[in-house]
Order: sequence, then C-alpha cells, then structure tokens
Amino acid sequence: MNDASARHHAERTGIWFVGARGSVATTATVGLAAIAGAQAPPTGCVTAREPFASAGLPEFADLVVGGHDISAVTMTKRAEHLVESGMIAPRLLAATHDAVERADAEVRPGYAPDHEEGSSQQQVAERLAADITSFQERHGLARVVVVDLSSTEPPVTPVPEHEDPAALLTALADPGRAVLPASSVSAYAAVLAGAAYASFTPSAGMGLPALTALARDRGIPVAGQDGKTGQTWLRTVLAPAFAARGLKVLSWSGTNLLGGGDGATLADPDAVRSKLATKTRGLTALTGSDTTPLHIDNVPDLGDVKVAWDHVHVEGFLGSRITLQTTWSAHDSMLAAPLVLDLARLLAFAHGAGVSGPVPELGFFFKDPWGSDVHDAAAQAVALESWVQRVAAQARP
Amino acid sequence: MNDASARHHAERTGIWFVGARGSVATTATVGLAAIAGAQAPPTGCVTAREPFASAGLPEFADLVVGGHDISAVTMTKRAEHLVESGMIAPRLLAATHDAVERADAEVRPGYAPDHEEGSSQQQVAERLAADITSFQERHGLARVVVVDLSSTEPPVTPVPEHEDPAALLTALADPGRAVLPASSVSAYAAVLAGAAYASFTPSAGMGLPALTALARDRGIPVAGQDGKTGQTWLRTVLAPAFAARGLKVLSWSGTNLLGGGDGATLADPDAVRSKLATKTRGLTALTGSDTTPLHIDNVPDLGDVKVAWDHVHVEGFLGSRITLQTTWSAHDSMLAAPLVLDLARLLAFAHGAGVSGPVPELGFFFKDPWGSDVHDAAAQAVALESWVQRVAAQARP
Amino acid sequence: MNDASARHHAERTGIWFVGARGSVATTATVGLAAIAGAQAPPTGCVTAREPFASAGLPEFADLVVGGHDISAVTMTKRAEHLVESGMIAPRLLAATHDAVERADAEVRPGYAPDHEEGSSQQQVAERLAADITSFQERHGLARVVVVDLSSTEPPVTPVPEHEDPAALLTALADPGRAVLPASSVSAYAAVLAGAAYASFTPSAGMGLPALTALARDRGIPVAGQDGKTGQTWLRTVLAPAFAARGLKVLSWSGTNLLGGGDGATLADPDAVRSKLATKTRGLTALTGSDTTPLHIDNVPDLGDVKVAWDHVHVEGFLGSRITLQTTWSAHDSMLAAPLVLDLARLLAFAHGAGVSGPVPELGFFFKDPWGSDVHDAAAQAVALESWVQRVAAQARP
Amino acid sequence: MNDASARHHAERTGIWFVGARGSVATTATVGLAAIAGAQAPPTGCVTAREPFASAGLPEFADLVVGGHDISAVTMTKRAEHLVESGMIAPRLLAATHDAVERADAEVRPGYAPDHEEGSSQQQVAERLAADITSFQERHGLARVVVVDLSSTEPPVTPVPEHEDPAALLTALADPGRAVLPASSVSAYAAVLAGAAYASFTPSAGMGLPALTALARDRGIPVAGQDGKTGQTWLRTVLAPAFAARGLKVLSWSGTNLLGGGDGATLADPDAVRSKLATKTRGLTALTGSDTTPLHIDNVPDLGDVKVAWDHVHVEGFLGSRITLQTTWSAHDSMLAAPLVLDLARLLAFAHGAGVSGPVPELGFFFKDPWGSDVHDAAAQAVALESWVQRVAAQARP
Ligand SMILES: NC(=O)c1ccc[n+]([C@@H]2O[C@H](COP(=O)([O-])OP(=O)(O)OC[C@H]3O[C@@H](n4cnc5c(N)ncnc54)[C@H](O)[C@@H]3O)[C@@H](O)[C@H]2O)c1
Ligand SMILES: NC(=O)c1ccc[n+]([C@@H]2O[C@H](COP(=O)([O-])OP(=O)(O)OC[C@H]3O[C@@H](n4cnc5c(N)ncnc54)[C@H](O)[C@@H]3O)[C@@H](O)[C@H]2O)c1
Ligand SMILES: NC(=O)c1ccc[n+]([C@@H]2O[C@H](COP(=O)([O-])OP(=O)(O)OC[C@H]3O[C@@H](n4cnc5c(N)ncnc54)[C@H](O)[C@@H]3O)[C@@H](O)[C@H]2O)c1
Ligand SMILES: NC(=O)c1ccc[n+]([C@@H]2O[C@H](COP(=O)([O-])OP(=O)(O)OC[C@H]3O[C@@H](n4cnc5c(N)ncnc54)[C@H](O)[C@@H]3O)[C@@H](O)[C@H]2O)c1
Ligand code: NA
Ligand code: NA
Repeated sequence: MNDASARHHAERTGIWFVGARGSVATTATVGLAAIAGAQAPPTGCVTAREPFASAGLPEFADLVVGGHDISAVTMTKRAEHLVESGMIAPRLLAATHDAVERADAEVRPGYAPDHEEGSSQQQVAERLAADITSFQERHGLARVVVVDLSSTEPPVTPVPEHEDPAALLTALADPGRAVLPASSVSAYAAVLAGAAYASFTPSAGMGLPALTALARDRGIPVAGQDGKTGQTWLRTVLAPAFAARGLKVLSWSGTNLLGGGDGATLADPDAVRSKLATKTRGLTALTGSDTTPLHIDNVPDLGDVKVAWDHVHVEGFLGSRITLQTTWSAHDSMLAAPLVLDLARLLAFAHGAGVSGPVPELGFFFKDPWGSDVHDAAAQAVALESWVQRVAAQARP
Repeated sequence: MNDASARHHAERTGIWFVGARGSVATTATVGLAAIAGAQAPPTGCVTAREPFASAGLPEFADLVVGGHDISAVTMTKRAEHLVESGMIAPRLLAATHDAVERADAEVRPGYAPDHEEGSSQQQVAERLAADITSFQERHGLARVVVVDLSSTEPPVTPVPEHEDPAALLTALADPGRAVLPASSVSAYAAVLAGAAYASFTPSAGMGLPALTALARDRGIPVAGQDGKTGQTWLRTVLAPAFAARGLKVLSWSGTNLLGGGDGATLADPDAVRSKLATKTRGLTALTGSDTTPLHIDNVPDLGDVKVAWDHVHVEGFLGSRITLQTTWSAHDSMLAAPLVLDLARLLAFAHGAGVSGPVPELGFFFKDPWGSDVHDAAAQAVALESWVQRVAAQARP
Repeated sequence: MNDASARHHAERTGIWFVGARGSVATTATVGLAAIAGAQAPPTGCVTAREPFASAGLPEFADLVVGGHDISAVTMTKRAEHLVESGMIAPRLLAATHDAVERADAEVRPGYAPDHEEGSSQQQVAERLAADITSFQERHGLARVVVVDLSSTEPPVTPVPEHEDPAALLTALADPGRAVLPASSVSAYAAVLAGAAYASFTPSAGMGLPALTALARDRGIPVAGQDGKTGQTWLRTVLAPAFAARGLKVLSWSGTNLLGGGDGATLADPDAVRSKLATKTRGLTALTGSDTTPLHIDNVPDLGDVKVAWDHVHVEGFLGSRITLQTTWSAHDSMLAAPLVLDLARLLAFAHGAGVSGPVPELGFFFKDPWGSDVHDAAAQAVALESWVQRVAAQARP
Repeated sequence: MNDASARHHAERTGIWFVGARGSVATTATVGLAAIAGAQAPPTGCVTAREPFASAGLPEFADLVVGGHDISAVTMTKRAEHLVESGMIAPRLLAATHDAVERADAEVRPGYAPDHEEGSSQQQVAERLAADITSFQERHGLARVVVVDLSSTEPPVTPVPEHEDPAALLTALADPGRAVLPASSVSAYAAVLAGAAYASFTPSAGMGLPALTALARDRGIPVAGQDGKTGQTWLRTVLAPAFAARGLKVLSWSGTNLLGGGDGATLADPDAVRSKLATKTRGLTALTGSDTTPLHIDNVPDLGDVKVAWDHVHVEGFLGSRITLQTTWSAHDSMLAAPLVLDLARLLAFAHGAGVSGPVPELGFFFKDPWGSDVHDAAAQAVALESWVQRVAAQARP
C-alpha cells in the first residue's frame, strides 16, 4: 500500500442516505456490513477491482452509515422483509443485524413537505444540514457523501429561481413558498453541510442549475443522475455495439415488470414520467431512432424482482433485418446497492482530491449523466478508470 | 479527400474468395455491386463510417471480385436461390445481375483433395497462385486480398511440418503426401501470389505456424480467424460489460439453430467441432467460467436464418442471481458479407502501407483473433480505430 | 360424398367483406383464389380437416368475393404492397391477379359517417343492403356471408336504443341522428339483406342487443367477436392448461408490437381501448387474476409482423414460483385470413341448416364469443367439431 | 360427503417411494405433511379440485410415507439442503420436520445391483416386497401405492425374457443372472406385495411386457411412464392447439438447462438417452415433424431450477411463417411432487375400485403413457375427469 492510500485508510467517511429506510439503502447497509465483516465478497462493486482497488479510495470498513427518511419502519424491519421475500440470505442478516441497528439509530426525520407548514425551506434545509454535520462530528468523519435514494418524484415544474442562485436563496427564505421539491431541499442541505452528493434517482435533486452552481461554489463534487443498473445499462452496452458494426437500429421496444416499493411508486403515472424520460434519453442519443416505446408495469407478485424484455429491430446489409430480444431478471436493489457503495467511495475520493462540481467521469453510474453526453457503457468504463488513475496520480506526492 | 486517399483511389484492388460460390461470398458480391452502383447503402460495413471513411481505404467501386470454388453451381444461381429464400430482395439481384455474372466468370476450380491424385500440394498451390496472379494482371490490380469463405473443415491433426517452414516446403513437394488441409493449401497459394489473406472460417488456413511464418517473410498482412458475426459477437459485447460491473458469470449456455449450406455442413459432428472450439474459447477467456454448454442444430426449414438463444446466469451482490437471456435472429450471410468487404478494404490498406504478418488490430472481426488475446468487442473497436488512424497518418507524406 | 354435401356443392356462396380493401380481406381474397386454383394448400384453415372437410360446407372454389370499403386504394394495389413487404410470395399474386381484380370490381363505397350528411342511417343501411342483394343476384348465390373486417372503432357510448329494437328502428329513420357506429350500420344492412354475419373486429357491429334481436328475428346466424388469432389465442390455450394442473396464475403481463394498418389504427388511444378490453376479458375469466397489464405499441418498421411477448408468473406447490415467457412472431393478416374463410364456410353451412341468431359454438374464432362464456381454446375446438357433426347429421335425410 | 368417500376416509393408504431420499420424494413428503397439517394449500395438485375432490379419493391426511433408497443421506438432510438452495421455505420444513423424520424411519435399503452378489433377483424382490408388506401391516394400511422416483437408468438391452412372464420367472430364480434392471426388480416387488404401482421415471420399471402381464394377473393397477411436468407438458399443450388451427409445425427445437441431482444424472450420456427418447416421442406423434433437436445440459449453478427454451417454427397460410418461443423456469421437483401425490391418490382409488393393469386414463401424468397413444394434454385432462367420475359412480351403491 502506498502513502496516499495509507493516509486515506486512517480516515473514516460517512454515507448519508436520503431514503435510508428504503430497499436500496437497506440493502447497501446490510451489504456494507457483510463486506466489512468479510461475510460476503464485494461482488457487483466496480471499485473492488483494479485500478480502483489500489487508488486510495476509502476502505469499505471505514464507511459509516446514517440518513434521512420519512418512514417509521426501521431498516431492521425492512431488512427482515427483504429476507422473507427471498432477496437477502437469512445468514447475512443474522451476521449484520447489529450494524443495521446502529445505522438505523443514525436515521433522522426527512423533509415531508406536507408536514412542514410554517417553516421556510431555508429553515428545513438548515435542520437537515445540522443532522449531517452532527453525524460527521459525533463519528469524527473526514467527510460525508449524501446519496439520494428516496422515492422518485414527479417531474418538477420549472420556475426562474431554479436557474438563478441568488433568486433561489431569496425564495428559499420565504416561508410562504415551496420553490424546491423535497429532493432538491435535501441536495441544498448537502451544500450547506459541505457534503459530496450523488443523485441515484430521476428526481430533480441537485440537478437544478442554481443548485449545481451553489455546489460548485461550495467546492463539493456532485454526480447524477438516476442509477443505471439493469435494462438501461444493458441498452447502453448493446446500442454502441450495433453502431460500431455499422448496423442501424430501427426500433427499440421495452417493457419492465416490477413489484416492491419502486413498483408501487412507479404505478403513479406522474412519478413514472420522470423515469421514462431518463430511460429513453440515452437510447435515442445512441441509436438515432425515435421508435422506443417503453412501459413500466407494477406487478406486485414479482416483489423486488425486475423483469425487463427488450425487442430490438435492426437493419443490416442490403436492407436485411436482425432482431435481438433480451430478457433480464434481477433483484433491482441488489443491482443498485453495490453501485451506491462505489459512488460513496469515489465521491469521497474526489472530495479528498479537491474535485468540485459535476464529475462527468462518474457518468458510468447514471442513466442521465451530469456534465456528459456519453452514454456508451464501455466508453464510460474506460473514462472512469482513466479518471481514477489520473486523480490518484495527482494525489501522490 | 486528401492526397493519400486520392492516390489509393486511382488503384483497383482484387478480392479473391476461396468458396466464391457459397452463400457469404455470393452475398458479398451482390452487395458490393449494389453499393458500388448506389442501389444500396453500405449498412453493416464497419469501414463506411469515420475514421475509416476518410483513411484512404480502397473505395467499394474499386474492388474487383474473383475466386476459387469446387462447386459447379454458379454465383448467379446461388444468388437466385437466396432471392427465393427471401434473403435478398428481387430488385437488388436484378440491378446487380451483370456484375455477379462478371464475378462468376472469374471463378476457377478450387482444390478438391480427392480429385488431385498425382500432383504434389506444391504443384496444386502453384496452380491456384497462378489463377490469382492472372486475375491481378488481367484487371491491372494494385493488389489482391484472398478471403477464405469455403466450407468449414474438421479440426486438423497436427504434424511437425505445421510448425516448421522448411520441413513444410519439403513435404509439400512430395506427391505422395497431403500434409495440409485444403484451406491451408489455399493460404499457401496466397503466399505464393503475394496476396494479403483473411481466414473467415475456423479451418486451419493460414493459422498453422509454418504458414504464418512464410506469410511474414513474404511481407503480406494476414488476419483471422472465424468471422465474429452474430451470437459470438454478442457474447463478446456482453461478457466484458458484466466484468466491468464486478458481476460474476456462473454459466453461459447457448443454442444455435440454422439451416442453409452452413447448417448442413455443421450437422457433421466432425466439422462442428472446429466451430464449437472457436466459439467458446473467447467466452471462457472473458468470463472465467467453464460452464458454457453450446449446441449447433441443423434446422433446414430455417434456411439461412440463424436463431441463437443464450442463457447467462450471473452472481451479483450478496450472492443474488441475475439472469439474462438473449434471442438473436438474422440471416447469417447478411451479417458476414459486409465484414468480408471491410476485411478486404482494410487488408488492402495494410498491404499498401507495408504491414506484414498477422494484424492483431483486426481481431474485431474474428472469434479467435490471430496475434491477440483481446476478445472484448468494445476494446477491439477502439483498437481498430486507433490502428487505422495510426497507419493512415504514417502513409501521409 | 353424401347427398347433403353434393347439394351444397352445386350452390355458390358470397363473402361480403366490410373493409374489403384492408390487409386481412385482401389476404383472404388472394388466399381463396390460390386455394381454389390449387396454387396453395389450405394451411391455417380449420375447416380443411375432418370432421369439417366432409360435413357439407361450401367448397373454397364455390366462394365469390365482394365488399364495402371507404378507401380508393384497390385490393390489387394493397396486395402488391403486401408482396413488397415480404408477406405474400410474388408467385402467388401473379397466379391470383385476375381473381383479385374481379373481387375488387365487386367493391362498393362503404359508410363513411362524415360524408353522409342528410341521409338517415336507415337510408344508408338500405343502400348497403342493396349492394349485397345485387351482388347475390348477379352471381346467382345461394346466400351471402358478411364479414366485418373494417378498422377498429373506439368503444361506443351506450344509449337506450341499442337495447330496444323498436326504439332503434325509430332512431334510424331520423336523418338528424347517428345512433349507430358505422360497424353497426353495416351489421344492420346484413339483416336487411338476409345475410349471415360475422364480426371479426372489436367494434360494436351486430353485438348491440337490439341488432342481435333483429338478426334472430330475420333468421340469420351471426357470430363474433374480434378474431382470436395470435397472442390471445395462445393465452386461451395456456391458461386452461395451468388450471388443469391446479397451478395458480398470479400475473399475466403482455406487450404487442406491430406496424401495418392495424398498428397505425391502434396507435389511437381511443381505438386501442376496444381492443385491450376484448383481449383481457377472457384472460381474467380463465385465470382469476386481475394483474394483467397489456400494451399495444405501433412499431412501423415491423410492417404487418406482430411480435407479442407474454410473461406469466405462476404459483406452484408449496408457494414455489414458475415463470413462463412466450414470444410470438407472425404476419397478423396471415393468421386472420384463413379463419375468415372458415367463418364464411361455417356460417353459410349454418344458414343453409336454418340456424339463427348468435352461434356460441363458433366461439373458437373469437376473443369475446357471443352467446358463450367459454374461452378455453381446447374446449372450444371440441365444441365446434361436435356442433358441425350434429348439424351435418340433421341436414342429412 | 357421500357414503363412498366416507368409507374411503376411514382407510389409510401407504405411499412407498423407490428413491425415497431423492429430491422429488423428499419434496412430496414435506408437501404432504404441510397440506395434511394445513400449513400449505394443495396448489399444483390436480386432485384438489372437482370432480376429483368429491370422488372419494383417500384424503391427504390419510397417506403414510415409506420407501426404498440406496443413499445414506436422510430425507431430513435432503430437505435441509433444499431449504438452503432456496427451493423450500424454511418455515415449511420447521412445521413438517417431525413428519419427515417419521417417513425417513420407514426407508429401507433399496436394490443396488453391485452390492447384491450371490442372491437371485427373485430373492432380492422378495426382500423388497417384504419391506412393503411389513410397512402395510405395521400401519394398518388398506393398500400401498409404489411410486418409482429413483435415478433414471440407461435404456435397457432387450432380452426375450422381458416379453414372456414364464421365462422371466425362471431367469429371476437364477442367482447367476441379472435379467432385470433395478427399476424393474422394484416393480416386480410391487407385484409380489400386491401394491399398485406408478413409474415416474423413464427407466424400464413395470414397462416390460412380462411385468405388465404379471401386474394384470395380480389385479393391481399400474401407470407410467416418465412424469410429464414441465417442458414436455407445455409441448403437449401447444402442439395440439396448432393442429386444431390447421397450422403445420416444421420444426420444434429445445434446450433444457438444469443442475441438482437430476442434472448430474442426466450429464451421463447413457442415462440421458432414456430421457430424450420419451421427451420427443410424443412431440413427433403430435406434430408429424421429425426436426426436433433437443438437448439437456447440466448447469450446476442453477441448482434444482430447470430452464427450458423451445423454438417452434410453423407454416401458416400461403406458406407464411410463424415462430413461437417459450422459456420456462421452475423448480423441477416442485412440479413433480404434487403430481406424485395425485398419482398415489388416484391409483389407491383405482385399486379400491378393482381396476387392474395399465390405466390409460392416467396418461395425463406421463410423457410416454402406458396403454394410450393420446399425448394431447387437454384431451388427457378430459379423459381423466370422465374416468374418475365413471369409476366413482360405479363405486357408489
Ligand atoms: N435498481 C434500482 O433499484 C434503482 C435504479 C435506479 C434508480 N433507483 C431509484 O432509487 C430510489 C430508491 O429505490 P427503492 O427501491 O429503495 O425505493 P423504496 O420505495 O424502497 O425506498 C424509498 C425510500 O425513500 C423514502 N422517502 C420518500 N420520500 C422521502 C423524503 N422526502 N425524504 C427522505 N426519505 C424519503 C421512503 O420512505 C422510502 O423509505 C428510487 O427513486 C428509485 O427510482 C433505483
Ligand atoms: N455469419 C456467417 O455466415 C459466418 C460466420 C463465421 C464463419 N463463417 C464461415 O464462412 C464459411 C462460408 O459460409 P457459407 O454460409 O457461405 O457456406 P456455404 O456452404 O454456402 O459455402 C461454402 C462454399 O465453399 C465451397 N468450397 C468447399 N470446399 C472448397 C474448397 N476446397 N475450395 C474452394 N471452395 C470450396 C463450397 O463449394 C461452397 O460454395 C463457412 O466456413 C462458415 O463457417 C460464416
Ligand atoms: N390477426 C388480425 O389481423 C386480426 C385479429 C383480430 C381482429 N382483427 C381486426 O380486423 C380488422 C381488419 O384488420 P386489417 O389489418 O385488415 O386492417 P386494415 O387497416 O388493413 O383494413 C381495414 C379496412 O377497413 C376499411 N374501412 C374503414 N372504415 C370502414 C367503413 N366504415 N366501411 C368500410 N370499410 C372501412 C379501411 O379503409 C381498410 O381498408 C381490424 O379491425 C382488426 O382489429 C385483425
Ligand atoms: N420434474 C421432475 O422432477 C421429474 C419429471 C419427470 C421424471 N422425473 C424423474 O424422477 C426421478 C427422481 O428425480 P429426482 O430429481 O428426485 O432425482 P434425485 O437424483 O434427487 O433422486 C433419485 C433418488 O433415487 C435413489 N436411487 C438410485 N438408485 C436407486 C435404487 N436402485 N433403488 C432405490 N433408490 C435409488 C437415489 O439414491 C436418490 O436418492 C428421476 O428419474 C427423474 O428423471 C423427475
Ligand atoms: Na361471451
Ligand atoms: Na403409449
């Protein structure tokens, strides 16, 4: 181990989940404890292999979990439910039970707009930021990374304040206005607390230009948006491969079936609009085709399993036709959780190295990458590796 | 157009198909004529887009077709059959009929081992080489690229002469011995004729070490082996993507259904062994998994359509399981033909630039790339682009 | 051949297509001519095998085609388009060209509500009925069967006149009212002309109770509704099989991709509502599950090919889970056309035997069978065979 | 409840599993205990619904389990293994633990040919029969049904004694000969013990003509062979449906992936031959097509999950093509176990009613039905229901 990683090793890092009691956050918490305790290998974590493994990222064992949620169902209860549904192995929860209880003890009430009458959003954000700062101080953490894992919100109606930091700050101070959706109030709290930030959801979060500017001013690295975990990831693997062969995608049709918490949320036609938008944006960019019908159906009996079918119709040589169909089946939260741990490690690393504002090289993790137009998963993997090596090299004396 | 490409433009290049009356060669010939005549766009050709398009490769319109075959069924008849089976559009054959007839007029009898009693393989190879040289001279071609598209042969039994050029030359001169399989006699003929060479089949061809050495000595570029067109290509797109995510492939099971000439050939358990070997080699290298059952079934009613089903079983976070199934359906020859044209253009370009011996950067096109251990399709695409840009830059004054 | 069938043989029967220039009607017309002319076997026709073949149905060669349409694009043009799209073999259209032209010469202007200002619907229906009667007389037909193959209409808004024959007749006479959708005006015209009638579409047609009553009074047999040709047929094959095994369907999710005329029509959210309703009704009846999300997407590049994916999630022994996925791909009109010919033959047979009103035993052909609650395809096949044998036995002296 | 069922209710019935410690037998034993104890509904049991439920079959709670096996791994251990692999829910094993232990206490050593040097097969069969008789007497059982659930054997080499009961008995008495495979020695033991018998495997079992004759003489009902549980069942649902539509199957290609004990057994090319034979026989009978390539691959990481892919290529109207693909995924033993319980109940019922010899109406349960050529699953379901109603009606006073 070189000096740089030794120095990092000594430091402890906080992960602050917005939506800490949800399926993904709970799975990440169980998994982190299992990996740190050597009860499970870090399969599915990008950062477990080279060049990440020796770049000086914080160790899994040095990560401490806390967060906000608006639900009273504890992480432990949620984890038990995930065991019953067959997603998490019973022995793993047994082995990590205490760590999960400790994490849940660090969960504070989140921002539920309907219950915060009377306060300005500035006051709410300060309360949330104070939770983060207190967490950091009590645990002696070098830094905290906030990861938004809360329920997907409907698309936000744009107002001028979303573009202009000064106007935004004025509006935030007005107790009569609620200029930001909840996800963006949480993002603003991260800015106030000086915490790095990742948006794993399609909600507005830190993505509003005024907030991105504030983050850059405050010197924190941010990354988003909407975790690219299953079907969309597969599409951004396949679509560039067709292009490299000179083959022309005519249509790319898809259906998603899922149950669980996310399935229920996305059964709401409003919420699903955010998701469908981020899911097709990349595909259209990669293929040039506009025929991309896509559905997300709530199928409660599937539980947390997501099944996705894609039908790709391609034109080949001399007008001949190729069809590719893919069927993908996976526990959605099991795909997301290791990437969430990767993001926490990488953003802590970036923060330590003084990186500020959107990090385009983290586009690998997102359906709708901030600061980048690259959707090609293989190109993103190369860019991510180069970036880590570059930053690690600069960090070394 | 820059000077380099202008210079190339003036030159005409020959493509010499071994197996010229087969499905792939016939489709390539129809397609070349249709592209050259602007009746079809070059969809499916890698070299039609940048950085290839402006690198100074020979133009489609400057390619001239000839070849060897042991069948008396003409390319025109074969093309008509492909029209009837629904693979080629009637209007395209109508538009290219004369060009196909011209190409077939350049087809000479190939080497059918059972009918060449009395001659040494040296004599046979010289006859084949003379056919190529005569073709080159009659058409005033700057160079010829030989592409092996003949029926897949069973795996060859190794003998010491395959490793040792001097010993090989001695054995070739002996009329009592048949030390090489037919595909390798054709490859040796390419060496004698000073023609660049590509092996699109899993047969031995130029792949025997003694022949590769002779090709390098003669200063010709060679590339192989076994065209990576459908299911295997898809696997080398997907497998590295799983690896980049830190996901662990447990098993990768596959089935291929196909009819047509290739289906009938591969119904022979001997011939299919060559194919199954090249198809799984890359996969095992990419995934580390040995559980890769694979079948190729002859289903005559499918004609030239190949249907391939893959079932991939993957371990994810905390021991969870992911399954991906893919079903691929395409006219096999329509996938192969444009890549054959690409190889002809790229090897002519390499030959013009003085490249000699196996070209590892052409690994993109092959299941079992000569001179390279890289199977990752995205990495191969990047390597191919860089190589073309590098060679083109050197070629410019 | 027995006496009964000999008698029928002598008679000629008319098929009158509403939507005669559409894809299904044109395909049925080409196919009928090809079968009658022995250029194609009657593959896909239920009535070509026993016990139907010897029951005394009218022969294919004794069927004469005419119809209504509101489009000016002739059947010949439509057929040429279907040849170009790869659906119909060129040699078949060549062989049937004259027959198709003859049929198109029997096509009369249909009822386009927007262009019939001033007339009462009674007057329109009389005009349509006169077209049918004239067709019957000019060709000396024993009887005519009207088959509705026109574009799917949006669901109809119910009014009291739809339930009450007397009230309906009064409303029809009022030039200021348009109490019926176009499909039901055509159905009423069949009643006026004394023609048997089948509704192959989900449109209201003869399905309104007042019209069904009029048909019964007039002594004509009627059958409907919405042809059960592909995915829905498959579902009614599979769902009863699960039930027979004591297995419990939890959810049945489906997606349809199609282009062509029907794809464009169903891209209209109003029209698709009729279709989605008939498609899920049977499934819910057969499985008891309400989780049956279903989509129909317009994917123009697929042309007349319909691709349907179903995901069935089933509970088995001790709470274990079974999944069945099906992918179906077929030219939709090629599935429908032979069944349309079957219906014409069977309804002519029924008419000859004096059957009147809805024929529940023809439920085999429909997504939403009139006069029956049976959706099980195997049970419907048995019922159909028994019915034909029973009626044929009665017909014999 | 009527008198007949009341009378049966009083009686207790034995199930004697050959291969009692295997996956299917263990699952059936756990499930029987769970159903009898009302911890699970009888989902997947055909006999749980009408007309079976009220026909007077023995109740689940009146069935007692014993059997033969050659393995020392107890049913309890096997069940624990099935819990760990995720197939059986932990709570179900907890609830049935004692019942499983009781059943395992009734397991006696089976016939392992390699360890029975010196004895004649007659002596072995008498020992096995004595185990069954003792079981029946100790538990006061009205009757016993033997179900062969042991590992699949390679196809047997035919000898004249297999056809001729007298010659067979002579050969059995000869200690120097082993004229029967193990499965048939077990079947002969059932004859000696006067027990009804079902062959759930493709092994010879009672299927040899000489044994079938002995069974008929002894007055016991027998049924076989090779449980029709998953892919084959699906095929016999679908193939008749295509036929009823007049559609012509051109080819039906299939692949099975499975791990578990059966996967390992079938990895042996000899054993798999028995299986492949029974699997395609019915399909060829139903479709008339000979192009039915089929593979069974051992994929250990799938455990007891069987994944089966089928590709059906069908000719429709005017030579058009239809493709249907099915992917089936299920825990194989969970499909088999409820049918095994059904067979035990139905054969006990048949035995009580004096039925003797092969029962063709039980063909519903088998890939290769004894005494019947019917493979159509829907027709078999109808025949089964009628038979039960008929026998039940005769049984009533
Ligand atoms: N593969 C994946 O799982 C995946 C991929 C991409 C994006 N996502 C996104 O990740 C998010 C989490 O998914 P999940 O399956 O864990 O969902 P979930 O419904 O299980 O959890 C969401 C949690 O957020 C909490 N929450 C809601 N509003 C909040 C607020 N204002 N403040 C704090 N907490 C709040 C909820 O109480 C709940 O505990 C979703 O937005 C989902 O779309 C998931
Ligand atoms: N997608 C693809 O189509 C694909 C992909 C990879 C490799 N390939 C390989 O390409 C080759 C051609 O495939 P195809 O579908 O055109 O097969 P094909 O059977 O249609 O054609 C093979 C031709 O080779 C000729 N031939 C046989 N022996 C010869 C000899 N000794 N000398 C000269 N000609 C000879 C035959 O007469 C025939 O015309 C096969 O080896 C196949 O495995 C094809
Ligand atoms: N497998 C199948 O193809 C299938 C299955 C079930 C139902 N259907 C139904 O069959 C119908 C025909 O399908 P298609 O693919 O041939 O559609 P299409 O769009 O090709 O043809 C419909 C025809 O109806 C004509 N039309 C429209 N309104 C009319 C009117 N008022 N009077 C007379 N003609 C009129 C149109 O001009 C057109 O020629 C559709 O309603 C479809 O939903 C088809
Ligand atoms: N869906 C299904 O599971 C299914 C369907 C059809 C047929 N089958 C057949 O059912 C049988 C059981 O399947 P399984 O998955 O339980 O297999 P398994 O390998 O788990 O069990 C077989 C058992 O038979 C025992 N055995 C072997 N030889 C014996 C002998 N001579 N006497 C007594 N016991 C013996 C073994 O020790 C083992 O315990 C197999 O033949 C299989 O092909 C299963
Ligand atoms: Na009905
Ligand atoms: Na039989």
